[in-house]
Amino acid sequence: MANPVPTSPFIYKDWLLIEPDFDPNQLHHRETVFTIGNGYLGTRGTFEEGYPRASPSTLINGVYDSVPVMYTELVNCPDWLPLVVIINGDRFRMDQGEVLSYERRLDLRRGLLSRLVRWRSPGGKTVELNFERFASLADQHVLALRCQITPIDFDGFIEVQASINGYPENQGFNHWEWLNQGKTEHGVWLQVRTRSSRIELSMASGITLSGVEASQQVSSVPGYPTLTATFMATMGQTVTIENLLTVFTSREVESPVTAAQEKLASLPDYSMLLSAHEQAWNQNWEASDIVIEGDVRAQLAVRYNLFQLLIAAPRHDDRVSIPAKTLAGFGYRGHVFWDTEIFILPFFTYTQPAIARNLLNYRYHTLPGARRKAAYYGYKGAMFAWESADTGDEVTPRWASPNDPYAEDIRIWCRDREIHISADIAYGAWYYWKATGDDEWMRDCGAELILDTAVFWRSRVEWNTKQERYEIREVIGADEYHEHDVHNSAFTNRMAQWHLEKAMFVFDWLFDHYPDKAIELQKTLQLTSERRSRWQDIINNLFISYDSTTGLIEEFENFFKIEDINLADYEPRTKSMQTILGIDGANKRQVLKQPDVLMLIYLMRQSQEFPYDPKILKANWDYYAPRTDITYGSSLGPAIHAILASDLGDVQEASDRFWQAVLVDIEDTRSNAAEGIHGASAGGIWQVLVWGFGGVQLTENGPIAHPHLPPNWTRLKFKLHWRDQWHEFDLKNEANNANSETNAMTDLTDSASLPAIQNSSGVQGFIFDLDGVLTDTAEFHYRAWQRLADEENLPFDRQANEALRGVSRRESLLKIVGDRPYSEAQLQAMMDRKNHYYVESIQDIAPTDLLPGARELLNELRQAGIKIALGSASKNARPVIEKLGIADLMDTIADGHSVERPKPAPDLFLFAANQLGLQPDQCVVVEDAAAGIEAAIAAKMLTIGLGPVKRVGAADVVLPDLEGVHWADLQAKLNAAKRQPVSQV
Amino acid sequence: MANPVPTSPFIYKDWLLIEPDFDPNQLHHRETVFTIGNGYLGTRGTFEEGYPRASPSTLINGVYDSVPVMYTELVNCPDWLPLVVIINGDRFRMDQGEVLSYERRLDLRRGLLSRLVRWRSPGGKTVELNFERFASLADQHVLALRCQITPIDFDGFIEVQASINGYPENQGFNHWEWLNQGKTEHGVWLQVRTRSSRIELSMASGITLSGVEASQQVSSVPGYPTLTATFMATMGQTVTIENLLTVFTSREVESPVTAAQEKLASLPDYSMLLSAHEQAWNQNWEASDIVIEGDVRAQLAVRYNLFQLLIAAPRHDDRVSIPAKTLAGFGYRGHVFWDTEIFILPFFTYTQPAIARNLLNYRYHTLPGARRKAAYYGYKGAMFAWESADTGDEVTPRWASPNDPYAEDIRIWCRDREIHISADIAYGAWYYWKATGDDEWMRDCGAELILDTAVFWRSRVEWNTKQERYEIREVIGADEYHEHDVHNSAFTNRMAQWHLEKAMFVFDWLFDHYPDKAIELQKTLQLTSERRSRWQDIINNLFISYDSTTGLIEEFENFFKIEDINLADYEPRTKSMQTILGIDGANKRQVLKQPDVLMLIYLMRQSQEFPYDPKILKANWDYYAPRTDITYGSSLGPAIHAILASDLGDVQEASDRFWQAVLVDIEDTRSNAAEGIHGASAGGIWQVLVWGFGGVQLTENGPIAHPHLPPNWTRLKFKLHWRDQWHEFDLKNEANNANSETNAMTDLTDSASLPAIQNSSGVQGFIFDLDGVLTDTAEFHYRAWQRLADEENLPFDRQANEALRGVSRRESLLKIVGDRPYSEAQLQAMMDRKNHYYVESIQDIAPTDLLPGARELLNELRQAGIKIALGSASKNARPVIEKLGIADLMDTIADGHSVERPKPAPDLFLFAANQLGLQPDQCVVVEDAAAGIEAAIAAKMLTIGLGPVKRVGAADVVLPDLEGVHWADLQAKLNAAKRQPVSQV
Repeated sequence: MANPVPTSPFIYKDWLLIEPDFDPNQLHHRETVFTIGNGYLGTRGTFEEGYPRASPSTLINGVYDSVPVMYTELVNCPDWLPLVVIINGDRFRMDQGEVLSYERRLDLRRGLLSRLVRWRSPGGKTVELNFERFASLADQHVLALRCQITPIDFDGFIEVQASINGYPENQGFNHWEWLNQGKTEHGVWLQVRTRSSRIELSMASGITLSGVEASQQVSSVPGYPTLTATFMATMGQTVTIENLLTVFTSREVESPVTAAQEKLASLPDYSMLLSAHEQAWNQNWEASDIVIEGDVRAQLAVRYNLFQLLIAAPRHDDRVSIPAKTLAGFGYRGHVFWDTEIFILPFFTYTQPAIARNLLNYRYHTLPGARRKAAYYGYKGAMFAWESADTGDEVTPRWASPNDPYAEDIRIWCRDREIHISADIAYGAWYYWKATGDDEWMRDCGAELILDTAVFWRSRVEWNTKQERYEIREVIGADEYHEHDVHNSAFTNRMAQWHLEKAMFVFDWLFDHYPDKAIELQKTLQLTSERRSRWQDIINNLFISYDSTTGLIEEFENFFKIEDINLADYEPRTKSMQTILGIDGANKRQVLKQPDVLMLIYLMRQSQEFPYDPKILKANWDYYAPRTDITYGSSLGPAIHAILASDLGDVQEASDRFWQAVLVDIEDTRSNAAEGIHGASAGGIWQVLVWGFGGVQLTENGPIAHPHLPPNWTRLKFKLHWRDQWHEFDLKNEANNANSETNAMTDLTDSASLPAIQNSSGVQGFIFDLDGVLTDTAEFHYRAWQRLADEENLPFDRQANEALRGVSRRESLLKIVGDRPYSEAQLQAMMDRKNHYYVESIQDIAPTDLLPGARELLNELRQAGIKIALGSASKNARPVIEKLGIADLMDTIADGHSVERPKPAPDLFLFAANQLGLQPDQCVVVEDAAAGIEAAIAAKMLTIGLGPVKRVGAADVVLPDLEGVHWADLQAKLNAAKRQPVSQV
Repeated sequence: MANPVPTSPFIYKDWLLIEPDFDPNQLHHRETVFTIGNGYLGTRGTFEEGYPRASPSTLINGVYDSVPVMYTELVNCPDWLPLVVIINGDRFRMDQGEVLSYERRLDLRRGLLSRLVRWRSPGGKTVELNFERFASLADQHVLALRCQITPIDFDGFIEVQASINGYPENQGFNHWEWLNQGKTEHGVWLQVRTRSSRIELSMASGITLSGVEASQQVSSVPGYPTLTATFMATMGQTVTIENLLTVFTSREVESPVTAAQEKLASLPDYSMLLSAHEQAWNQNWEASDIVIEGDVRAQLAVRYNLFQLLIAAPRHDDRVSIPAKTLAGFGYRGHVFWDTEIFILPFFTYTQPAIARNLLNYRYHTLPGARRKAAYYGYKGAMFAWESADTGDEVTPRWASPNDPYAEDIRIWCRDREIHISADIAYGAWYYWKATGDDEWMRDCGAELILDTAVFWRSRVEWNTKQERYEIREVIGADEYHEHDVHNSAFTNRMAQWHLEKAMFVFDWLFDHYPDKAIELQKTLQLTSERRSRWQDIINNLFISYDSTTGLIEEFENFFKIEDINLADYEPRTKSMQTILGIDGANKRQVLKQPDVLMLIYLMRQSQEFPYDPKILKANWDYYAPRTDITYGSSLGPAIHAILASDLGDVQEASDRFWQAVLVDIEDTRSNAAEGIHGASAGGIWQVLVWGFGGVQLTENGPIAHPHLPPNWTRLKFKLHWRDQWHEFDLKNEANNANSETNAMTDLTDSASLPAIQNSSGVQGFIFDLDGVLTDTAEFHYRAWQRLADEENLPFDRQANEALRGVSRRESLLKIVGDRPYSEAQLQAMMDRKNHYYVESIQDIAPTDLLPGARELLNELRQAGIKIALGSASKNARPVIEKLGIADLMDTIADGHSVERPKPAPDLFLFAANQLGLQPDQCVVVEDAAAGIEAAIAAKMLTIGLGPVKRVGAADVVLPDLEGVHWADLQAKLNAAKRQPVSQV
């Protein structure tokens, strides 16, 4: 199972990725694999001496420049690697002469790339060359390259040329204009500038030789400053050449050319630089490492993915983010996608939050571009670019050009339609805030970002007058196989709704805590109260196609009506389903490029908000997973599937998907790693380890693990940073433990976590009725029934209404009509009418409509680790609790859609308990209606009745309402009540 | 008038363009201006030492490579110019230090670019540098560069680096992969290969120094082989560095790297190479020069334009053409347009036909691409690309990208709609054949090209069943401001019709002369006789919106209905009307980017076919010229307007347009010369000089001049190659000659021209009736009337028909119906029917239907300089004479559309005389009908009657028919007749 690729081209050691042979056919893939970097820049693993068709690349984050037709791209910078060794006139190159031995290794712990080659020149001389390089993590402007040369079987002249190549190219395009170059006592320097963005860059280079007397020369060929050393080498004696380089751009300093020269002049030697570099790596791994025991390959592969994220992450710059292909290649032209906030950000949020903050600030700084985009499309607020570069303006190419010159270009619609990006960014910001408690950031940056994108959503939704609902039409959801006629994408709509919910919250929070800032934003973003109440209206009425009976969510409107597909019919295959079916073909079938509804469920997992729910997960997994092109669709898919499979207890599936994701770059399982590192997949790996295999859940008391380790793993160790505290996890998989559910021991060594309130009652869950308990929707129901009764000339009053507490809609109606003759159709129409009146009236429900004491009690219960369910007969329960702002506090919802038989049948409460994973006797029902109490008793649960004894006297505990009620008091009362019935038996 | 730009940055001498100062703001424009080349390659006038933002460029014709999104482009090749001079450590560069004096000169006669600079280094040393370069016209693979260095005020070390820069770029894109480089005893070499098209190129370079002892070194920096010489310079002593280079690609030789090295090893010295080069230029100018006296600036400017064509013209390669911007820049990516065949080709056809043949063979070789294009669009045959590169496949970009990243891309429709290109190429081929008599080429290449494109036209036209006509819908004509809803473009339809006419002719000719080839093509191109008769049907019935009353041709259907415009309302302006109005705005208005109907008239000028006709020209000029954006629309316009203005006798207008065209590159009048030379405009200049100012007409006896020189020009001298003979023209403008019509003396020194037949009669024009005189359509008319009469039960026979000779259709019908009662509507319907029968029957008329002796007499009359008109009452006269193949021989046509009153009124003949520009007494009418003789007498013209005296006895001269009739005989008879009436008065 844990060995999906039987033979690997690599040798895996804890911290070492070793390439034992060079395969020219894998040239570009290996260049990606052996990328090094320091967060400031990334340099692909090309050879110092060059190779035919090689693609040398050094990308400095933030150095963008425009390119005809394709907007703007991350610029390939002057190459600092060229080091040519000429042995008695023969230039060392691996495609000529004879390679006698070869080994390349990437040391992840030290951030060091090295290569050992023994080579026989065409002239018959044998030499051993040992190359080593690093981009200093201790000082981002310093690069170092070392070459040790040992003649094996000759004495002779050797010439070494170390150059800065000022003619780098982005797939042929050179963004640089030469400005100047020169030499100093320390070496040579080059000064260049990008064509359009006018970013100036300077590199300086100086070499030292040891082990021999050498003459040095400077060559001033335009654009290619070169230091040449010539010496007489002696058989068996090693000569060491060290080339130290500095690099600056006008993004950091006023005069890069001065900075590069001064820095070069002040550098210590290679070994001291290496030592500082190693120390910096130590610190990084201290925070961000994940230890796996029992599977060396998994250990290395996971660390490799984290390494690639660490070398791409900006440490000293908050105006850049991490491009989709990191800084390791030209794929997607260095553009930034949702990959950062959704896939990569958690790794940094929970292990190096300062980097996470930099990444989020990039979005904050690019709000002007997002506003320009919104304005262009005719919307308000900020609409983030699907692909973003330096300014935040949309840079997704409009067209993909086919190879056939007569075929029409293919329009890329993501720029116009893949609008969920704005919610994704708000999502990343929200959870950064939740995890760090960084209120200052939320005040200064986050709030504006979340609120102005909420303004966008308000302008983007449409009101469907016929269906009386808000809609978002013509989008692309997470699943990019569907790009036409996608209306009311569940992913997009729910994310937008969620976004507006959080925006409401953030605004209120800001008003409470920083009223000046709130007023400022209110003014600049024009957040009138009318507009905010429109947000609430949208939250309440945004359409999501969800069938509560089956739990199935429809990916978008009418998705279930399009042609179905059996992916097994297409196996075996090595191409994506879109390649096989064509763009239109995939668009017309129920085949997904990547998780979409499942992605949504995953995103709501942390807060357990709708639609995260075990039943919904199961139903949608069973439906969507088999229809998802998880092998050749998006590389974003496998990690997410791995986590959900973990949740579902399918360790095998989780493990398979983990391997698929973790090897995507090292072993090039999708054949496109040559274009750069799959950053989102790498970030997903961290999430698989922590949320999936680690099963970490973030509670108000901090993160708690529920591990599901792959069987052969004996240990999984990592730590999380949560609200200024480190939480260390050391999860062990004890072999031969029969009970797989509990075979992972959670060793929570977090000293800072709050002591849990003792729960002496044995109560594990609370099930709350809604109407009359948490809110007074009973009043709304009463008015709706009254209106209906009046129209139908039926006798009805407040007193008659009392009899309807806790009674289903149909039963209520039957009570009202009594034995008057109505047909089923008439009854149905009347129920619809009443519901319509009711739904109409509850649009205005707000958190202030929570009954006194309800929120406080719910919070106390959650803090105590008690699970909470809603148990309401209402079919509108979900929108109501969402409007009340307590959906977050519910672990599950049992509502009018959940069961057939109404209260007083016990079904609804039994359903709720089952959803909570509890036995009935672990649950307490809080009810205000006689039928409800009766149902709870029938379910053999403890009961709390709210209201007059006349109505709820059958309950174990009777209270007037929840005001001033605390968990400690209740516990005592319930303990007493519990003892009582026990003693009665 | 002759001085449109009051101050010029240049000094103009006969053969020298001198730039007295360097202006960095004009950097890219001057690079274009000082382009040199040899037909194999072109090298822009960048400086040897470089300059910030310089755009060095060497383009080798045919070396194309693909570029993302933009298809394919002409590749910038390694730069052979880099020559860096370092004086005591200071690198010579004109943007630093102090330029004390400067002069650059392009010697057009010798093809030599030189620059003399006196410069003071930042270190205070003064040096004089004299650069000189040429691309050998004697050996296309040889390039030479010389630099003379004279220290003015110092002794000191000077270092010179001569390099091949292997990192050239096309606006940032480098098409080359480095393969290898090295050194030999003769110098250094570089081997590179294009990325996609895999064309290998090698350059080799060797330097020699004289005047000093110098040490030479070779630097092997990757991709930038450099030869360095260091020497101690002495004040006042000149050191000369000569760098000789060779260049080969795999398009010419198997091993470019070997060829470049071998050629370098065998080269003589710089001065011998220069001498051979100058000799080659002498030969070229001998054939192609135009001498102007009286206007030095015009002289230089004209020669400059011819020079640019000569250095872009392939001499040893018939698989390339001349790109729109020649080899002088990146504009239009080196693609080939109709610019070559319509604008540039005549220069070569009439001065260096071997080059013209190469250019046409490019189209022949790219027929496979044209067939692929046709197949892609769903048509048959060959549909040439609007923009063409190496394969002939369509390479017009689909989109133009606006600068605003949110603005939608602009679709470029030319690839789909500007289909006249296929007829334009056939046009070029036809006139090459006419001018050269190169039957072999027509047999081997031309016929296939003309016929397979005719096959395309057959599949492209649509039959409009309602209007009973062929149509060509949704095109772009010559006028590119109209690209939507352009149906039945007069330009396109007439060119297609003309093309089919010539295709018919070529096929018949081929069948007559090379039946085997005809049968072969019949088979491969599937030219069944049924298909050819469809061609004839299309010729007969292809719709052209022409109003014979006004002479106005409508640019396309409903053009006259769209919104009109007064361009004066927009003056002064510096932008095109499309920029001002927007694409849609221009599309919706009667504003033209360039001549369209006028272009068509121009193209039919040489053969004087429809619609070339003085009246039509005048009418359409008056309508379209004021609506044409001649200043900022297409650069293709001014030269054509200049020629037509010459035809119309408007020398001022012609001269203004000439200046506009001739300075477009030198003085950058359209601000886009930086992108390369306007090749079409340069070709147009030659046509203005020869067809316009020279007024040359090509008769069967060779070219004859009717000069209209600008007043200040005293002499215009050139020669034309016509059917294996040189025809020299030495046209003089005698000052102060009051009669402007005759102030240009034609000094026809052509020794091969036939002596003109003396015209002693004073007769200047002949007006021929058609029916019964030139052809026997009288018979067709008779049959049509007979059929109508039979259907209507009207008495009619051959005898009755005799009375209809020379009588209009209506009069004829009235004679037939006599006094029977018919309504006007009935009469109209009957006339239509008769005409329909007639038109149906005359479809088969062919040159063989000419009556005996007619063609011979017409030819004799033309040779004698007698003007010829048709004077026929028939409304179908034009198609009939075209089918008879004598349209070329007519100066004008007066037909049933020309006047109101029929013969015997004199109107028709008076109209014809007026069109010929003659008085009635200078004209002779040839008639076969009594009414016709009567009309001629009424017009006071001499008359020749053909037929029985009974019928035509009133004529001055009566003959049975034209068989055996010669001009000399007629002259004698007419002289006698003339004397007679004179004596009678």
